[in-house]
Amino acid sequence: MFKKKNEDFIKNLDTVRVIQTPFVIANKTIKTARNGKNYIELNLSDKTGNITARIFPDKNTTEISDNLHLKSIYLITGSVDEFPRNSKNFSIKIDEFKKLSKDEYDLNDFARVSKKDKKELMNQIKTTINNINNPYLKKLLESFFSDKKFVYAFCNAPSAKIYHHNYLGGLLEHSVEVLKICVTVSDIFPEIDRDLLYTGAILHDVGKIKAYDYDLVSVDFTEEGKLLDHLFISCDMINEKINSLDVEMPENLQTQLLHMVLSHHGEVRNGWGSPVDPKTPEAVALHHADNLDAKVKIIIQNNGA
Amino acid sequence: MFKKKNEDFIKNLDTVRVIQTPFVIANKTIKTARNGKNYIELNLSDKTGNITARIFPDKNTTEISDNLHLKSIYLITGSVDEFPRNSKNFSIKIDEFKKLSKDEYDLNDFARVSKKDKKELMNQIKTTINNINNPYLKKLLESFFSDKKFVYAFCNAPSAKIYHHNYLGGLLEHSVEVLKICVTVSDIFPEIDRDLLYTGAILHDVGKIKAYDYDLVSVDFTEEGKLLDHLFISCDMINEKINSLDVEMPENLQTQLLHMVLSHHGEVRNGWGSPVDPKTPEAVALHHADNLDAKVKIIIQNNGA
Amino acid sequence: MFKKKNEDFIKNLDTVRVIQTPFVIANKTIKTARNGKNYIELNLSDKTGNITARIFPDKNTTEISDNLHLKSIYLITGSVDEFPRNSKNFSIKIDEFKKLSKDEYDLNDFARVSKKDKKELMNQIKTTINNINNPYLKKLLESFFSDKKFVYAFCNAPSAKIYHHNYLGGLLEHSVEVLKICVTVSDIFPEIDRDLLYTGAILHDVGKIKAYDYDLVSVDFTEEGKLLDHLFISCDMINEKINSLDVEMPENLQTQLLHMVLSHHGEVRNGWGSPVDPKTPEAVALHHADNLDAKVKIIIQNNGA
Amino acid sequence: MFKKKNEDFIKNLDTVRVIQTPFVIANKTIKTARNGKNYIELNLSDKTGNITARIFPDKNTTEISDNLHLKSIYLITGSVDEFPRNSKNFSIKIDEFKKLSKDEYDLNDFARVSKKDKKELMNQIKTTINNINNPYLKKLLESFFSDKKFVYAFCNAPSAKIYHHNYLGGLLEHSVEVLKICVTVSDIFPEIDRDLLYTGAILHDVGKIKAYDYDLVSVDFTEEGKLLDHLFISCDMINEKINSLDVEMPENLQTQLLHMVLSHHGEVRNGWGSPVDPKTPEAVALHHADNLDAKVKIIIQNNGA
Amino acid sequence: MFKKKNEDFIKNLDTVRVIQTPFVIANKTIKTARNGKNYIELNLSDKTGNITARIFPDKNTTEISDNLHLKSIYLITGSVDEFPRNSKNFSIKIDEFKKLSKDEYDLNDFARVSKKDKKELMNQIKTTINNINNPYLKKLLESFFSDKKFVYAFCNAPSAKIYHHNYLGGLLEHSVEVLKICVTVSDIFPEIDRDLLYTGAILHDVGKIKAYDYDLVSVDFTEEGKLLDHLFISCDMINEKINSLDVEMPENLQTQLLHMVLSHHGEVRNGWGSPVDPKTPEAVALHHADNLDAKVKIIIQNNGA
Amino acid sequence: MFKKKNEDFIKNLDTVRVIQTPFVIANKTIKTARNGKNYIELNLSDKTGNITARIFPDKNTTEISDNLHLKSIYLITGSVDEFPRNSKNFSIKIDEFKKLSKDEYDLNDFARVSKKDKKELMNQIKTTINNINNPYLKKLLESFFSDKKFVYAFCNAPSAKIYHHNYLGGLLEHSVEVLKICVTVSDIFPEIDRDLLYTGAILHDVGKIKAYDYDLVSVDFTEEGKLLDHLFISCDMINEKINSLDVEMPENLQTQLLHMVLSHHGEVRNGWGSPVDPKTPEAVALHHADNLDAKVKIIIQNNGA
Repeated sequence: MFKKKNEDFIKNLDTVRVIQTPFVIANKTIKTARNGKNYIELNLSDKTGNITARIFPDKNTTEISDNLHLKSIYLITGSVDEFPRNSKNFSIKIDEFKKLSKDEYDLNDFARVSKKDKKELMNQIKTTINNINNPYLKKLLESFFSDKKFVYAFCNAPSAKIYHHNYLGGLLEHSVEVLKICVTVSDIFPEIDRDLLYTGAILHDVGKIKAYDYDLVSVDFTEEGKLLDHLFISCDMINEKINSLDVEMPENLQTQLLHMVLSHHGEVRNGWGSPVDPKTPEAVALHHADNLDAKVKIIIQNNGA
Repeated sequence: MFKKKNEDFIKNLDTVRVIQTPFVIANKTIKTARNGKNYIELNLSDKTGNITARIFPDKNTTEISDNLHLKSIYLITGSVDEFPRNSKNFSIKIDEFKKLSKDEYDLNDFARVSKKDKKELMNQIKTTINNINNPYLKKLLESFFSDKKFVYAFCNAPSAKIYHHNYLGGLLEHSVEVLKICVTVSDIFPEIDRDLLYTGAILHDVGKIKAYDYDLVSVDFTEEGKLLDHLFISCDMINEKINSLDVEMPENLQTQLLHMVLSHHGEVRNGWGSPVDPKTPEAVALHHADNLDAKVKIIIQNNGA
Repeated sequence: MFKKKNEDFIKNLDTVRVIQTPFVIANKTIKTARNGKNYIELNLSDKTGNITARIFPDKNTTEISDNLHLKSIYLITGSVDEFPRNSKNFSIKIDEFKKLSKDEYDLNDFARVSKKDKKELMNQIKTTINNINNPYLKKLLESFFSDKKFVYAFCNAPSAKIYHHNYLGGLLEHSVEVLKICVTVSDIFPEIDRDLLYTGAILHDVGKIKAYDYDLVSVDFTEEGKLLDHLFISCDMINEKINSLDVEMPENLQTQLLHMVLSHHGEVRNGWGSPVDPKTPEAVALHHADNLDAKVKIIIQNNGA
Repeated sequence: MFKKKNEDFIKNLDTVRVIQTPFVIANKTIKTARNGKNYIELNLSDKTGNITARIFPDKNTTEISDNLHLKSIYLITGSVDEFPRNSKNFSIKIDEFKKLSKDEYDLNDFARVSKKDKKELMNQIKTTINNINNPYLKKLLESFFSDKKFVYAFCNAPSAKIYHHNYLGGLLEHSVEVLKICVTVSDIFPEIDRDLLYTGAILHDVGKIKAYDYDLVSVDFTEEGKLLDHLFISCDMINEKINSLDVEMPENLQTQLLHMVLSHHGEVRNGWGSPVDPKTPEAVALHHADNLDAKVKIIIQNNGA
Repeated sequence: MFKKKNEDFIKNLDTVRVIQTPFVIANKTIKTARNGKNYIELNLSDKTGNITARIFPDKNTTEISDNLHLKSIYLITGSVDEFPRNSKNFSIKIDEFKKLSKDEYDLNDFARVSKKDKKELMNQIKTTINNINNPYLKKLLESFFSDKKFVYAFCNAPSAKIYHHNYLGGLLEHSVEVLKICVTVSDIFPEIDRDLLYTGAILHDVGKIKAYDYDLVSVDFTEEGKLLDHLFISCDMINEKINSLDVEMPENLQTQLLHMVLSHHGEVRNGWGSPVDPKTPEAVALHHADNLDAKVKIIIQNNGA
Repeated sequence: MFKKKNEDFIKNLDTVRVIQTPFVIANKTIKTARNGKNYIELNLSDKTGNITARIFPDKNTTEISDNLHLKSIYLITGSVDEFPRNSKNFSIKIDEFKKLSKDEYDLNDFARVSKKDKKELMNQIKTTINNINNPYLKKLLESFFSDKKFVYAFCNAPSAKIYHHNYLGGLLEHSVEVLKICVTVSDIFPEIDRDLLYTGAILHDVGKIKAYDYDLVSVDFTEEGKLLDHLFISCDMINEKINSLDVEMPENLQTQLLHMVLSHHGEVRNGWGSPVDPKTPEAVALHHADNLDAKVKIIIQNNGA
């Protein structure tokens, strides 16, 4: 297995030297050099960044390029170059390359992935669902979390394009953290409807599954994410799921739940994207729990960078 | 028919004198006077405001009160009083009252109602629908406007609780006005997708049907209106209608349409309630057409007050 | 013991009737009636509000007034009056009054007091202090909480003049709630310095002891509170206490702690009163934990009102 | 005629190759190469951007440079170079150049010019003026539009330095578009004074004639434009014109008209430059019509870029 | 002379008693009492406020009323009443009244007037003008201050409707104060053009002469003041005066001066009404000198209230 | 003495040529060239900026580097290079260098230093202190200004990292300028407590002594400056000094003084860093005097740049 060494991560490629280490191919183009010959320019990436690399084949440039698969991982042999000298512009001249199979590399070298144990996080959600008393909310949550495709997406989606928890698995991690804070808030304020607050905490960001397009190389907005934003998409997914239940949720309960999700970006006048002010204790609690978790995460991520 | 004279509207009841004119009963309670006798205190209204009135029966106060129907229109005979003297606090002492039937009063004396001709306004919408080329948008609009219950609600709903077009029929009036501005904008900018813009103009506020509770006496938010706001409710109604069509609207078109509705309060950072910035020419046009119509209406309504 | 009945609280004095129940005398003045006779006008209060009352003595008005003690509790016998009729302006005509001793009334009828058990709250603080590892922070906290006068003030001060936790004991209650949220945040983010965060949570509002003047009747700002605000006063009290310790706290630790307190109202540009942005994970966490607790409390207090 | 081909516009000069196509000379300087020889460095432009070019004469560099006329159009023969390699920094090495006369090039290749037909736009303004009933406003408009120098400037000025309609003829185009929207608004709201609104629509931006300095190569602020802004300059021009009329406009009408121009950037507190809030229906309508046209134009211009 | 005693000013009329003291008649109406008789209701004022008063003539009410002159000063004999009792609503029942001539009252009892010596203030302006070196600015200032009508208005106008220096003579007082601060700023920063700054300081608010309508009783906006605001009116007056000079001011100097006046409310984005940002040292200095003087005046006026 | 010529300042090193002139060494590192040889890369500075320079020794690179002293001034002989050609990236190739002693260079070539005479400025402060009547404030000021270490720091500290007076001596210069403005304000408003205002003006920024770390090469925040900001540090220094006096300052006076310092960034809601609004005339005056001086300084500094 070709585990990357620390000095081989892209952010550390800052001296002129020979290397052999795996990268993802993020992009490729064929270019023409001054001497008239064609060469292949690649954009390589690992979890620390991107770097330009070039292959100068003697012939068959097009075929070679056609055989390079985007978003696949290759073992690259070549040299790190700096041009112009002292410009801090480093690139790689590739001498050899070889596609690696899934067991020949460590995915964690390439994708930015949550460091927390997904199973444990999912267990916390499941335990919470088991302890929900309200039969409608329990059904709703069970319906979401018995859908394997949903669970897979929920466990792997990032929580943001930039900002906080912007890595694979970030959505699950963030949702559980918000849930934990909400548990404490419910302990402090017995007036709060726990079942409602916990359901809101777990589901408030589910729309991010559809709002982001993510893979080894990057996180981006989908067309839906760009034009409708995750607040609306989350509500839409919850609505659709409620309609598919075999019981009819009381309309007031449905409105209360949707309200929490719609208002979780806080007061309208702040201009952070909520179309309604949080108007119930549960909505206020969810907004501030979400904000607390996100803001602490941001400063810790930035400090660690 | 007991048409109200100008001096008999509530806002003009500012001198001590005898009157006979119809009012709506907005509220009633039984109270006890200093002398120990019960009397009935009413809140009367017409389209210009509210006033307190009292009936002092000799006996059977409860039965009399039970026979007074809230939100019905009564011909009231009595005197206007000012107490304390010079306090500008006027009330009515009722001597006689009589329930009027529908043909004995003019509804326009009581409800604040659009002055424009509903049929003509509806015709403008129908003509627009007929000229839509996009088959999906045409179907969607036809489906809404072939639903009589919807059309009735759309024609009678107010467009706001306070602010602009805050009277019965205001939604229809405002929607047609926005449509007209959008027609001009499409003439100016041929790059704009007319079908999409017109559909957005017609449907952008449909959620107000569910967001407001209104009658002769007042306009108020429904629970849904308070907790979800009309932007979301409009989208939800459009989504539901699209799902009920016998053709499948292309996902991209649906997203474009929902985007216009979600973003029609303008840029998120303004804090006016849009959860996404308007990001397409049609969404930008709809937002500013809506704003133009509303703001001119406000100043004209205020000037006229 | 003269425990107030529900209908005898000031907010419920809304019908003309005879009463006998205790009140605090918040204010008194001697006035002259139209007939030339003097009478005493009182401002009475209980925990639900204030009401005007009058005593019309036959003679010796001045002596009677001199014997009425402000901020003391009296059993009042008299009648509730409404003048002008139907004005909803109620006042009390006092026939008899009698000063009550401490065991003749229930303090909770008069002062707005935290409903939580102070001993239990103080125990949570003490347990936290015992578990602090950093010797300087532990000393600092022990020094504060071994000072009986400080503890008394800390347990009885309100947390605000208006807004959240604006009742006696509110400071203690709020501080412990923020501490609980900080414990959860520390569980979620192991990168956080727990000792520092807990110390900040406990001490962040200590300046409120000096910023508010409070008694049975009202909460008000002191001159210091008005001109310096509790952020600065808290820092000043912490600084003074640190200087009085028999060990010298490392300067960096002191700066970190003061930073948390100074920045706990969030980013400077929000205009909420912090003179520096929260720049450490502990400061960010404290700010948002404080905000979360306060905002949920506000909506629950308002809902309950 | 040397009409530019699509691939010869500056924004498309992104490969190393030989070219022959016309450019404007926006700037020139004489520089000294490493080998001690002088050369001429030019800044060339067309409507799509700017590019650096160099002439390396064997001798007489100064004379050659003196004969190159700024803001004139030359047919340039030479090669496109990229240095450093792969830097995307393209420049032109000029082998030959020849000044073109007016009929040898197409102005539209160089200046960013309105695509709409000026005559048709001017006709819409003239028709509007003919239909104005108010004699003072009609005189005022006629006086402006019978001044040929003014009409020339009004037809050719841009409407902005950056942002919307930032090309030659943009002012005319924008003014007519705003007028069209105002016609629709007048149809919707019969309470509006049409003559006043149309006059305001036509004249609201006339100050831009003096606020911008523009030519083939660029749009910039004049000293007056920078220090006084077009709102004030427009008012000043209108005032001056009113004073030159042979009738005396009623003071109130003059104030109403100036008010519309001064307030057309909307409410003062928005910080968009109006020194007074729009306070009349006409002023509110003009502001929002102006904003609608500008904002839709911006997104369409950006989409097209 | 009937100089008002302290206890006779309206703000001190808070006990039931007999009075004899002068007031301005601000308004009058004839009303009908419950007993059917007519009486005259007056609104009286002095510099401390307004109060309602009533005259109950036996007959000839209309003639009596016709002979009462608005905005004139009368010696009023009568009694102060409180109705309803304890309502703090005081009014005056008038027994006798007599119109006073100019030498029978002290104007300062009625109008809120600057306490500073106008002559001394005008002298400071004149000395400044004498010391101006720039011949154009000197001519401009001389032209303004040799116009007696202008000087009269400039000396008596208030500087605001509410806020700072909102009394007769406030404009002169404020202008001289701003000038003084500007003198200090010029001492500190030799880079500043003194002549320009002083001219701006003296003239920056001249438009207030036309923007306010003021008399003994009140300060209000004129139509011009409401629709054009004093920034523009000041510029317009300066422009007009410049055009009337027998020398031609260099255009750049005129632009610089107008710029200072237009921008003296600070940066556009603050939303305080400047249509351009202050962009020269003189404009920045004038804005902040103006702001400093106004803000200190406000707090001193409020403290004194 | 090696006084720098104008063309030798770093901002003017924009042509390829030979130079001999002194610089500060701001930074140094050893690097390895393509040919495998080591060289020394320096960051040189003077008061106009920074430039990269390189020494290519034949041998003993490490020893040579060790003998180069950071923040010392060296006479540098070498050539100015541009690489890549036409890139405007200039650097220096050093041929010879020699450390200069204090009398061989002019400090003003390197450090950005106040141009005003420090003695004169200090005299203005001393004269002010002598004229203070309030014995406590006089003692406080004397205590600060009899501390030589404090005076040295106060005379040499900058007033900002960027923005206004951001050079050595800027704090003294700014404090005296604010004082001068406050003298004028006190003349205008006799209600102001001069002693208090002058003391606040002199001491309002003393915390900058501890908030900035500065030397020949740069101004930066200290840890304290970053985490506590100068408002708090100033108050803390004043508090500490007050506690060290042999008289006890009345608590109210101390609160008033601290209030001025804490609030001198203006209203809390502006988000400029004050934790309390200025609530006294002196605090309002200090805030606006400070702002006036800073804003005029900024535009003059920028104009001069």
